[in-house]
Amino acid sequence: MSDQQISVTFQPHGRSVHVLPGTKILEAAAQAGMTIETPCGGAGVCGKCRVRIASGACPPGDADRRAFTADQLRDGWRLACQTAICSHAVIHIPQESLFADQHKILTESHVDATLEVLPAVRKVYVTLPPPTLEDNVADLLRLEGRLGPLKADLNLLRRLPSLLRDNGFSGTAVLTDHHLIDFEPGDTASRCYGAAFDIGTTTLVGCLLDLTSGSELSVSSAINPQVRLGDDVLSRIHHASSSPAGLAQLRDAVIGAVATMLARMCTEAGVDSRWVYEAAFAGNTTMQQLLCGIDPSPLGEVPFAPAHARGLIVPAGQLGLAIHPAGAAYLFPVIGGFVGGDSVAGMLATRLSEQDGPVLLVDIGTNGEIMLATRGQLWAASTAAGPAFEGARISCGMRATTGAIEKVVMDGDLRLGVIGDVPPVGVCGSGLIDLAAELLAGGIVSPEGRLLPSDEIPSSLPATLASRLRTDQAGHVRFVLAEGDGTRQAVAITQRDIRELQLATGAIRAGIAILLKQAGLAVGDLQRVLIAGGFGSFIRRSNAQRIGLLPGELDHGRIHYVGNASLAGAKWALLSTGARQQAEDLARRTRHVELATDSEFQTLFAEAMIFPAT
Amino acid sequence: MSDQQISVTFQPHGRSVHVLPGTKILEAAAQAGMTIETPCGGAGVCGKCRVRIASGACPPGDADRRAFTADQLRDGWRLACQTAICSHAVIHIPQESLFADQHKILTESHVDATLEVLPAVRKVYVTLPPPTLEDNVADLLRLEGRLGPLKADLNLLRRLPSLLRDNGFSGTAVLTDHHLIDFEPGDTASRCYGAAFDIGTTTLVGCLLDLTSGSELSVSSAINPQVRLGDDVLSRIHHASSSPAGLAQLRDAVIGAVATMLARMCTEAGVDSRWVYEAAFAGNTTMQQLLCGIDPSPLGEVPFAPAHARGLIVPAGQLGLAIHPAGAAYLFPVIGGFVGGDSVAGMLATRLSEQDGPVLLVDIGTNGEIMLATRGQLWAASTAAGPAFEGARISCGMRATTGAIEKVVMDGDLRLGVIGDVPPVGVCGSGLIDLAAELLAGGIVSPEGRLLPSDEIPSSLPATLASRLRTDQAGHVRFVLAEGDGTRQAVAITQRDIRELQLATGAIRAGIAILLKQAGLAVGDLQRVLIAGGFGSFIRRSNAQRIGLLPGELDHGRIHYVGNASLAGAKWALLSTGARQQAEDLARRTRHVELATDSEFQTLFAEAMIFPAT
Repeated sequence: MSDQQISVTFQPHGRSVHVLPGTKILEAAAQAGMTIETPCGGAGVCGKCRVRIASGACPPGDADRRAFTADQLRDGWRLACQTAICSHAVIHIPQESLFADQHKILTESHVDATLEVLPAVRKVYVTLPPPTLEDNVADLLRLEGRLGPLKADLNLLRRLPSLLRDNGFSGTAVLTDHHLIDFEPGDTASRCYGAAFDIGTTTLVGCLLDLTSGSELSVSSAINPQVRLGDDVLSRIHHASSSPAGLAQLRDAVIGAVATMLARMCTEAGVDSRWVYEAAFAGNTTMQQLLCGIDPSPLGEVPFAPAHARGLIVPAGQLGLAIHPAGAAYLFPVIGGFVGGDSVAGMLATRLSEQDGPVLLVDIGTNGEIMLATRGQLWAASTAAGPAFEGARISCGMRATTGAIEKVVMDGDLRLGVIGDVPPVGVCGSGLIDLAAELLAGGIVSPEGRLLPSDEIPSSLPATLASRLRTDQAGHVRFVLAEGDGTRQAVAITQRDIRELQLATGAIRAGIAILLKQAGLAVGDLQRVLIAGGFGSFIRRSNAQRIGLLPGELDHGRIHYVGNASLAGAKWALLSTGARQQAEDLARRTRHVELATDSEFQTLFAEAMIFPAT
Repeated sequence: MSDQQISVTFQPHGRSVHVLPGTKILEAAAQAGMTIETPCGGAGVCGKCRVRIASGACPPGDADRRAFTADQLRDGWRLACQTAICSHAVIHIPQESLFADQHKILTESHVDATLEVLPAVRKVYVTLPPPTLEDNVADLLRLEGRLGPLKADLNLLRRLPSLLRDNGFSGTAVLTDHHLIDFEPGDTASRCYGAAFDIGTTTLVGCLLDLTSGSELSVSSAINPQVRLGDDVLSRIHHASSSPAGLAQLRDAVIGAVATMLARMCTEAGVDSRWVYEAAFAGNTTMQQLLCGIDPSPLGEVPFAPAHARGLIVPAGQLGLAIHPAGAAYLFPVIGGFVGGDSVAGMLATRLSEQDGPVLLVDIGTNGEIMLATRGQLWAASTAAGPAFEGARISCGMRATTGAIEKVVMDGDLRLGVIGDVPPVGVCGSGLIDLAAELLAGGIVSPEGRLLPSDEIPSSLPATLASRLRTDQAGHVRFVLAEGDGTRQAVAITQRDIRELQLATGAIRAGIAILLKQAGLAVGDLQRVLIAGGFGSFIRRSNAQRIGLLPGELDHGRIHYVGNASLAGAKWALLSTGARQQAEDLARRTRHVELATDSEFQTLFAEAMIFPAT
């Protein structure tokens, strides 16, 4: 049932994705994490989305012929917004065609070229003159002569005299800020690594960075093992508060998972974990407090006060991190009880406050975080969207990994895009959005969200699709995406799944409405809407609008997918102390809009649960 | 043999000492730690040393009659430099009669009134408004609203949310600098203590201070248990270097002794050790490094480079101190490998660099430290005087505790002052100085330091004294101070003891000479010579000069005993962060004069071993 996907490689970035034939280059590039400029909204008139298809080009269309000379067309130049991919292809994207002010995120694994790589961790190889009677200053002063004033950790100071003398007063000083944390024999200055983590309620993502070059060495993701102790933030808080061991249990779970990810990433990159000197963590307020072992009880009740606001730098040992024993962990500043470090990290990485015109950033996860920037002012709110988009609480939901249906097109019958091009085993967030949009468009789901039984659906619907609707003896309707066989279960969507999706989309839509109102803006005023989240795949913008996740009146071309912005922010914080200062500034400046206690939000939420009319 | 001592109490300080009848009030006051002004050098002419004997006054002398009216004499007014104590007495010392610029030290247990008590540790009782939906800032920010910006230790942050909520948002914040280290239920602001320690090679002295008032609550002293692993600095370094466990053994020994002293002082003062938030340590470079567990090997060989120069603030836990678990330890800055934190502390407490005219500070311990200040310039040197003055390496030597002969007067026969007024069991530093001076004066010891056998002594010597000289079968001469009986051994001095004393005094005298030469000064230029050290008792200035410990040409009135200046400095550092800054400044400014490798020192040392001609 799963159609053959085709591979597209984008140069010079070297990123490959697999797409269904007929996918526009624009969408394929977005899946690869690169947003191509479309000032005309993808209408094929501005000619800004120029790309060159080096191999696998289809014949040019009318818009291409207007935009390019015959020579250029022969060389493979096409408009990315107009050209569908019909076979395996290699496509060059010129730098000028990339959405300029989003380039930072979009090439997230290559780190923003304009971001100065100036991490808190620094390694310097020094060769010092050995002390003499004429020059017998203290060992630490001798080092300071080269490195400037510094404080030495006592554990290091204990070993420093012999470290210097055993190595002829040469070696590599390891500094975090102005703390000397180690002195390594020989020149190890090039072995300097850090790990960035997005600590999601449902999903953990980490990456290992070379702190000297800023390059990404390996990535890892995992389900947050805390899910077995509660699948949303409130149930975790409840677990932490309900017994003395509860907090430790949650902390140990996530620290253990982080350790596993770290070990995996180090192995993959061939890096010794003692050369990892810092880790940066972005998570919502509860996730960060649980990671630190800070009592989250007050986050579970009005007025939801967090323990700290500014970012924290804590000794790795105190956190239980298996990196260099004198290393440190950075935790993002938080804005409020439910708008945490992940939001700050996202605002940081998208340079939200620096963009022209009103910009909305929607980070879709188990919590949906919504941030709005206009004329230097910032607002943020959080809604308990639930884990539907991460595949949890959905009967056949799963994370965006091998076997997940990530794309659904209803076209006579169903065409499914499955990650890894294997038989489908479940559906992930982006697949769920596609499916719901198609079911709505086909009249199989009513605007109120009712999954109609086969006898109520439009008679125009092809029989192949109608046959996918099954009603069990209890009268429960489900829509089958993939039939089961002897070895695996059918993949189907139920009424309850649709309700979960409605809750998630309704919460986000209502949140967007409240934030716009606070800022005195209408949807039409928004210059850009940035969608962040770890879907693992691109959300089709039209489908996100069709199910009401994003306002329908929004110009399609203003919506951009920016990938895991929270992780990108964590990487920035690891690579730049300046970015940490910006994060403090963002957290301090942002107005926290409390939705849980807003009566208007409840009304808007109820309204937003109704799918928009197609 | 031990004469009955009489008690003298000084008011308004309330200090009591026991002295031999005939002791001048000036000397008795000095024993009590108070130096009385004697601009005329104790000649009875300037009238500055006025005191009032409230009870136990002897008849006035001629100088008294010149200085006071008949009414004043009747009221008990006398000149302290002229009046001997003849019976139990209570003596009032007016503030103006106390040596003004030494008052800080002399009243060391009462802490300098001009020293601003502004310790690094601060406790503040706060009552905060509980968070509401309108005011739900982070817990830490809520505290900062009252206390200013602060960093919280992670271990505290973990408990802070429940600490605040369980106590209705009231409690006592404990801060060291800008670190929040605890939040205690209720108002505990008045329970704020610190401990200051002088970590000597041979002797440890500590005191417990109330950090809110600056008052001293209890004191404790002990033999440094490291002595069983070597009785001087070099043998300790050797022990630390000779086996991997050596350093830990030395560290554990001193940390264990500090723990015992702390516990004893807390019990005595009725203070819970968790209310002790900081400890300050002053010791020579090796003692401080051993206390911290810092490899001291380089201090044992040319060019004697220390590990650090600036003062250290280390977590109490990392040091193994049994105070508040988030407390801190302060270690003094050091000047060089052999001029350490004790010297800096001494310079700090005597305000050495602020005094008029050239001033010499001699701190007599197992190491003799000599510091010189003139016109804003500072020099310091250290000599391995050996532990003779602390009673070690002397056949019947002991610390200045009960049973120690601390005073010796040769007057027909011997009159001995014994601490605690019990039968003597040994001789301490000040007793040894007295004895050597008297033996020299009596011709029993030759200027070269030879203890003469009874057949070589002057025939004018009373038979009672001559009979104390005994020669054993091997020809070794000894001088018996106290005969033994069935239960205790005789107390006697040997030729070897005299040699030890010569080494100690010679080293200090040669050191003084080198420092004076470096500064281009003669002995006569010195306006003051301050003698520091934990003798437990006053050194008689004339005797110290007679044995050559201090230059004989020095005006007697310019010599002042300032007690344990190192401990006094440690107290200051505990009570005032400003004092710590001064200590840094002093350590940085002081020129370190290396004696061990100075060939001129060797020559002068050899010369100074000869006792001065009487």
